[in-house]
Amino acid sequence: MASKKKAKKKTAKKTAVRVKKEAPKNAFYAQSGGVTAVINASACGVIETARKNKNKIGKVYAGRNGIIGALTEDLIDTSKESAAAIRALRHTPSGAFGSCRFKLKSLEANKREYERLIEVFEAHNIGYFFYNGGGDSADTCYKVSQLSKEMGFPIQAIHVPKTVDNDLPITDNCPGFGSVAKYIAISTQESSFDVASMCKTSTKVFVLEVMGRHAGWIAAAGGLASTEDNPIPIVILFPEVEFDQEKFLAKVDANVKKHGYCTVVVSEGTHWPDGRFLAETGLKDAFGHSQLGGCAPVVANMIQQELGHKYHWAVADYMQRAARHIASKSDVDQAYAMGKAAVQFALKGHNSIMPTIDRVSTKPYKWKVGMAPLSKVANVEKMMPKNFITKDGFGITRKCRDYLEPLIKGEDYPPYKNGLPKYVRLKNLPVPKKLKKFEL
Amino acid sequence: MASKKKAKKKTAKKTAVRVKKEAPKNAFYAQSGGVTAVINASACGVIETARKNKNKIGKVYAGRNGIIGALTEDLIDTSKESAAAIRALRHTPSGAFGSCRFKLKSLEANKREYERLIEVFEAHNIGYFFYNGGGDSADTCYKVSQLSKEMGFPIQAIHVPKTVDNDLPITDNCPGFGSVAKYIAISTQESSFDVASMCKTSTKVFVLEVMGRHAGWIAAAGGLASTEDNPIPIVILFPEVEFDQEKFLAKVDANVKKHGYCTVVVSEGTHWPDGRFLAETGLKDAFGHSQLGGCAPVVANMIQQELGHKYHWAVADYMQRAARHIASKSDVDQAYAMGKAAVQFALKGHNSIMPTIDRVSTKPYKWKVGMAPLSKVANVEKMMPKNFITKDGFGITRKCRDYLEPLIKGEDYPPYKNGLPKYVRLKNLPVPKKLKKFEL
Repeated sequence: MASKKKAKKKTAKKTAVRVKKEAPKNAFYAQSGGVTAVINASACGVIETARKNKNKIGKVYAGRNGIIGALTEDLIDTSKESAAAIRALRHTPSGAFGSCRFKLKSLEANKREYERLIEVFEAHNIGYFFYNGGGDSADTCYKVSQLSKEMGFPIQAIHVPKTVDNDLPITDNCPGFGSVAKYIAISTQESSFDVASMCKTSTKVFVLEVMGRHAGWIAAAGGLASTEDNPIPIVILFPEVEFDQEKFLAKVDANVKKHGYCTVVVSEGTHWPDGRFLAETGLKDAFGHSQLGGCAPVVANMIQQELGHKYHWAVADYMQRAARHIASKSDVDQAYAMGKAAVQFALKGHNSIMPTIDRVSTKPYKWKVGMAPLSKVANVEKMMPKNFITKDGFGITRKCRDYLEPLIKGEDYPPYKNGLPKYVRLKNLPVPKKLKKFEL
Repeated sequence: MASKKKAKKKTAKKTAVRVKKEAPKNAFYAQSGGVTAVINASACGVIETARKNKNKIGKVYAGRNGIIGALTEDLIDTSKESAAAIRALRHTPSGAFGSCRFKLKSLEANKREYERLIEVFEAHNIGYFFYNGGGDSADTCYKVSQLSKEMGFPIQAIHVPKTVDNDLPITDNCPGFGSVAKYIAISTQESSFDVASMCKTSTKVFVLEVMGRHAGWIAAAGGLASTEDNPIPIVILFPEVEFDQEKFLAKVDANVKKHGYCTVVVSEGTHWPDGRFLAETGLKDAFGHSQLGGCAPVVANMIQQELGHKYHWAVADYMQRAARHIASKSDVDQAYAMGKAAVQFALKGHNSIMPTIDRVSTKPYKWKVGMAPLSKVANVEKMMPKNFITKDGFGITRKCRDYLEPLIKGEDYPPYKNGLPKYVRLKNLPVPKKLKKFEL
């Protein structure tokens, strides 16, 4: 036993020396755009996989508030976090390092920012760039991936997919979406049960507003609430379908007459034929200020005024994308796998790519990790296929259900303390700065 | 073994004969007012306990849509439901038999309704009346309990406490509240994590509207989201505290300046010094129709216009009280215990009472079942004690936290199928009618 230990120690020393010789590059990791219930699971995948490959990747530096952290040299040294803290990222919602809404301009339009990135990467020996975000962020990542070619700076840029909007191309689905879908499906089901019990003498229509300005993926998930065992009269308003007030009210009224109640799931992106969002109501307060409201109250008022049904409405907003407490296990697993694969692809020498989730089969659900070139991902939006929406425009088809169901499968509960989830907050210690200040 | 079985069979036969002789009375059970995530757990407690005492209680007939079911002789025969279906009520939100908002007038004001109740109870051999509801319902139950005295009809009326508002007197807390409190505490925590990650370049203030028109118990639960491990800058708006716009905006702004972000939990009952609710904004749409909105958008707009901070807002509405997926285990256990105790008290001959939850100790949390006379429960509202709200009016005190924490303790997950909770829908078969129709 003792001799074995010694031998191990020797090897460790040897490796340490070798590592020093090769001076492995550090990695930069950042979170971008709207955060999700599982983006930290991807961070966990990146950091844990990098830690397992210390001979090839030095430290993982996280950008504080996304790419802004890189530009301002505001780097977080993730090596100061314990293994337990990094493990806990897997069950913690939101962006542990801070996110940002910031899109790099093109190289021609703002060369100064790219030069600064190179300056920061060089100063901190960064050779890997992992960017965790949606469509806009994929564009940023793509631009960084071109630095090798365009400016002669050796960097491997890999995009880690993330978006509750589920609108990235090529990948079957996007980490973050499955958990929102599960939350909306369950909330729609639970609230519908509530209305069904109240409808005899009280509320007859419940309206739930969900995210999705351009694509109706999240609204579609509301349709999952109605199952063969528990059918529920649900009317969905998609951004893909122009709002037809008359047809909509007739549908709601028919449901109330037949079932006693009706649930409406409305996407925030629902709009009139002329393009105006339902939420833009032209409402003014007592002082003449315009009021920005949600579209749920607009739809609810319409139902009350035209049909006279008592209503309740809810707006899920951030709750839906932060609801780690009811995250989908498929989603958590895939988010982690994307982070892990990003590092593995980097170690194989890839640049300018994004790992993808490739569906192998739906029943039983099987998927594997694939790869897409960033040039084909950046700035491409995947909309809902037409055959996912029923002909009347208010529901989801069997095809859509088959696609969505596996994505909300499985529960992955966080640990609890005193009735609350034990979400981690990292120390987020800064890497000492080496450069002059940079004005954004 | 064989002889033992035989002996058992003999006893069973004997009992059956005795039961027939004594013709045990049937029980009436109904759900009233706004439903909750755990009111069905109380129903489960009532029905399972009655089934264990078949020699003393015949069948449990549930009122379809509360007391209306009794008046219209629309009774549900719960004996037609399997043991598994009744067991599943424990993890199913909403009111399985339908609820109602309907308050019996006084005996003097509407004797006809009381006579009808007696007629229905007599026709169906009902001797026990279990009513599951809040303050208004306790008043209905109290009136029924007086039928013995006032009209000479033998009935034992027991109230089973339920209300998310947590405003029933005498009992330490009310079944239904703990689960809403847990949902709001977790949603506040999760959304706050989200805002904290976004605040550098985007949203700085998140506003969450919660239920509670008269008492701020649910809003107070939002304060639980901030813990020693994970402090969060939260500003709570209680209905108990007159809204002071200047002071409120100063508090929010100070939080944003110090922490970069701020979370606001606003009770729907928050009002101006003159009594007007914040939600009554005097908003008019393009056609001059008054718009009924929530108070979250009002608060959010105020922040945007006066402070210029980017905001997001959510309205939890029915989602909060239907969220069985994240129910508090304390709450589920207590809801069941109240249903069970109601039957046990009835079997001991009690009338005109309500089982209560009596707190024995807070650390560790211990409670036992108590009993309160309905005369002291009906129409009494328990408000938040003054020393539960911080001096500035925007937070909860240590005393409040100590009171609330045990109520959200423990998780009690429902079973899942294909990513959705397996909530039960009963067959709800009607008891054949024996009487003439009754017009409400």
